[in-house]
Amino acid sequence: MNHKMIRYVLGWLLVFEAIFLAIPFITALIYKEDAAVWFFLCALLCLALGFLCKRRPKDTTLYAKDGFVIVALSWIVLSIFGSLPFIMTGVTSSYIDALFETVSGFTTTGSSIFSSVEDLPRSINIWRCFTHWVGGMGVLVFIMAFLPLSGGQNMHIMKAESPGPSVSKLVPRVRTTASILYTIYLVMTLLQFVILLIEGMPVFDAICTAMGTAGTGGFGVKNDSMGGYSAAIQTTVTVFMLLFSINFNSYFLLFHGKLKEAFNCEVRVFLIIVIAAIGFVTLNIHSSFDSIGEAIHYAAFSVASLISTTGFMTKDFDIWPTLAKTVLVTVMFIGACAGSTGGGLKVSRLVILFKGVKNELDAMIHPRLVKKVSMDGRTVDDGIVRSVLLYFACYVLIFAVSVLLISWEGHSFTTNSTAVAAAFNNIGPGLEAVGPTCNFQFWSVPSKLVLIFDMLAGRLELFPMLVLFSVKTWRK
Amino acid sequence: MNHKMIRYVLGWLLVFEAIFLAIPFITALIYKEDAAVWFFLCALLCLALGFLCKRRPKDTTLYAKDGFVIVALSWIVLSIFGSLPFIMTGVTSSYIDALFETVSGFTTTGSSIFSSVEDLPRSINIWRCFTHWVGGMGVLVFIMAFLPLSGGQNMHIMKAESPGPSVSKLVPRVRTTASILYTIYLVMTLLQFVILLIEGMPVFDAICTAMGTAGTGGFGVKNDSMGGYSAAIQTTVTVFMLLFSINFNSYFLLFHGKLKEAFNCEVRVFLIIVIAAIGFVTLNIHSSFDSIGEAIHYAAFSVASLISTTGFMTKDFDIWPTLAKTVLVTVMFIGACAGSTGGGLKVSRLVILFKGVKNELDAMIHPRLVKKVSMDGRTVDDGIVRSVLLYFACYVLIFAVSVLLISWEGHSFTTNSTAVAAAFNNIGPGLEAVGPTCNFQFWSVPSKLVLIFDMLAGRLELFPMLVLFSVKTWRK
Repeated sequence: MNHKMIRYVLGWLLVFEAIFLAIPFITALIYKEDAAVWFFLCALLCLALGFLCKRRPKDTTLYAKDGFVIVALSWIVLSIFGSLPFIMTGVTSSYIDALFETVSGFTTTGSSIFSSVEDLPRSINIWRCFTHWVGGMGVLVFIMAFLPLSGGQNMHIMKAESPGPSVSKLVPRVRTTASILYTIYLVMTLLQFVILLIEGMPVFDAICTAMGTAGTGGFGVKNDSMGGYSAAIQTTVTVFMLLFSINFNSYFLLFHGKLKEAFNCEVRVFLIIVIAAIGFVTLNIHSSFDSIGEAIHYAAFSVASLISTTGFMTKDFDIWPTLAKTVLVTVMFIGACAGSTGGGLKVSRLVILFKGVKNELDAMIHPRLVKKVSMDGRTVDDGIVRSVLLYFACYVLIFAVSVLLISWEGHSFTTNSTAVAAAFNNIGPGLEAVGPTCNFQFWSVPSKLVLIFDMLAGRLELFPMLVLFSVKTWRK
Repeated sequence: MNHKMIRYVLGWLLVFEAIFLAIPFITALIYKEDAAVWFFLCALLCLALGFLCKRRPKDTTLYAKDGFVIVALSWIVLSIFGSLPFIMTGVTSSYIDALFETVSGFTTTGSSIFSSVEDLPRSINIWRCFTHWVGGMGVLVFIMAFLPLSGGQNMHIMKAESPGPSVSKLVPRVRTTASILYTIYLVMTLLQFVILLIEGMPVFDAICTAMGTAGTGGFGVKNDSMGGYSAAIQTTVTVFMLLFSINFNSYFLLFHGKLKEAFNCEVRVFLIIVIAAIGFVTLNIHSSFDSIGEAIHYAAFSVASLISTTGFMTKDFDIWPTLAKTVLVTVMFIGACAGSTGGGLKVSRLVILFKGVKNELDAMIHPRLVKKVSMDGRTVDDGIVRSVLLYFACYVLIFAVSVLLISWEGHSFTTNSTAVAAAFNNIGPGLEAVGPTCNFQFWSVPSKLVLIFDMLAGRLELFPMLVLFSVKTWRK
């Protein structure tokens, strides 16, 4: 383990966190909020600690293990310092609540412990939504766009932080890849912001909504989430939630005119699932709406919100019939495309799972005609199939253990399982006591710790957190 | 596909079913029930059809695919003919209900569509419990103990019907292995029967209970299942449910004095899970019982009933606190040991899953020190690890799709998911509307068909049913 390199990256991380904190600080200055001083102090603290640590070590060698540990520790440190403003400004007096809110922000979960977000200072709200934005694409990917590290070292970190079964570099240099991804991300966020403005959304709301949508986070600035905005705004948010769920590589390919490569297998399956889910939900709920168009509108918003793992809300889907709810819970698990800002299992993993199972069946039927699993015309390496299968097993096991752990509190079975599903897939709302109109404040400290672990494990795709907490990692 | 061999085995199957039907027929004669004539007619029908089909073909070659198809078809044909007495005797007028009850019997699920089993003729009740007994160890394994087939052909069938990730022959000859397994099974069933008699259980109840326990089925002859019997009887049933959940190979090894091999990794993990589960449930429910001993008694019964996938009941666990219920649902999924009569995922699969995940983690931490997964001192073949991972993925996917399919009926989320869990793991009761005091009659025909598929897929460990319904199987 290269401890000095860990310290070095964490140092830079704190410097960047200080820069991030400038955004709520400036917001507080604009709106003349007392919180300004606290954001300033937090930023100063991060800056001081960061400069202390960020001395470049001589040996910059990083192994895969170090990559995992750096990523896991970075997100924990980021969340710990990011939670300070919540305590300092006094919006909550519970440290675990502050941490929960920050982890929920950075991991783009969007589960809140606040019952009324409208009562929060604007600087706090913009900080909440900004954590989504930077967490969505990955904070280390962001830093790597600036930090001078050699390719191999970058790759270990990028692999550990980026969602999906395999990481493909858009261009040979990792640093350039990171820059391209963040440029696409920024342009799309700005585009949504401008459209929301044109549709009459207040500037502050539009900034927060665009950042929350881009990161597929889900923190809102209104107590009814997106429920109070116009149908046009809701539709824009629906469309952008889906756009941010698609692999960013596709936009890069589209930009270079490679239409066929852009609409790859994963994107096509994702769109088919979205359309099917909207169809089933609409059929199931249309009788309680005035028109079929209205039913489609709300069904599309909810499906987009949950499959993208954003978690915005227009209607309380907890009161919808069971089929609609089951479809929504199913898409919560499926999640977005790999390489997007969305969470969940990822469509490409599901495709590989299905193909793997089909392949096994075919091998049973015609043992001599065994072919390899292929996707987009290319053979999927056996190692990737195996690691997807292992990922899936690991995912289900962590899910089951988490539900078991939080069930001692005695809430309903549906509450417990959808709370873990919402945290683990980085969505936000679940059903019943954690439904879209509720919040996560009522959970006890141990349960909140379990959910915090789940949010981080879900966002970082299990292994960084597991490696961090594995005894073997720390054994000499 | 060797159609003639399929016809041949199905023919023999019907002959054996005719013999099986002699048991309720004799029971009906003893108790002077009108049902006797119907059982006689059913048996005659099976015998006639059986003799028509069981002509031995020249070409007896069987491929793995044929093994799967034969097993899947056998269980469907067995259930179709086994359901006739329910219709003929008029205990139900719905054919789908009769089929559901029979499949539930043979697959040792034990979910019933009858609201009052005490009102049923004794011949019907003994038929219900006998289907558990023969389904538990496997009807084709039974037939193979008699049928003159060569080893290789037997093995394909045995592999497809026997539960667990790998089939080990106790002795070189498959036929002898089948005989040994059934002898152990019969001796243990008789032992339980005698103990129950000594403890004061009526003869008829003891026969039915012993058969239901042996097959880990769960059909009872009392409306309150095991609730009305003495504590001694309940304890005996608890112990035997656990005994029938252990790999029968262990008894064979124990009989030959190989103590260490008998208590292999799977058995040890199974016992640890059982003890831990009883501990957690007891802690969670003890306040509502007079003494801790009483709490342990009921906790042990419920845990044994659900991990063995039997489904007998002494207390309505649906009203227990959430932790207890979650532990019970968890053990429902874990299930029994491979090579036992119990269902579920099987402990050995779970052990291999955990070891596979741990191995992957170790490989991430120390890529150069990758070892193979090992169990009981032997290396687990990569192919087995892979097939366990695939099995698990397939299992979760079928579970999710089934829940989705039956959710259109609008029952609660917990009802739907535990109904599928109960059917798929061959347990019987779930929670809420399918709780231990309820029955499965209220489901619509399509939902019952989904649950019937799940029961068969669960009992036959997915692949026979998937191969049967795969287009490729039937394509030239």
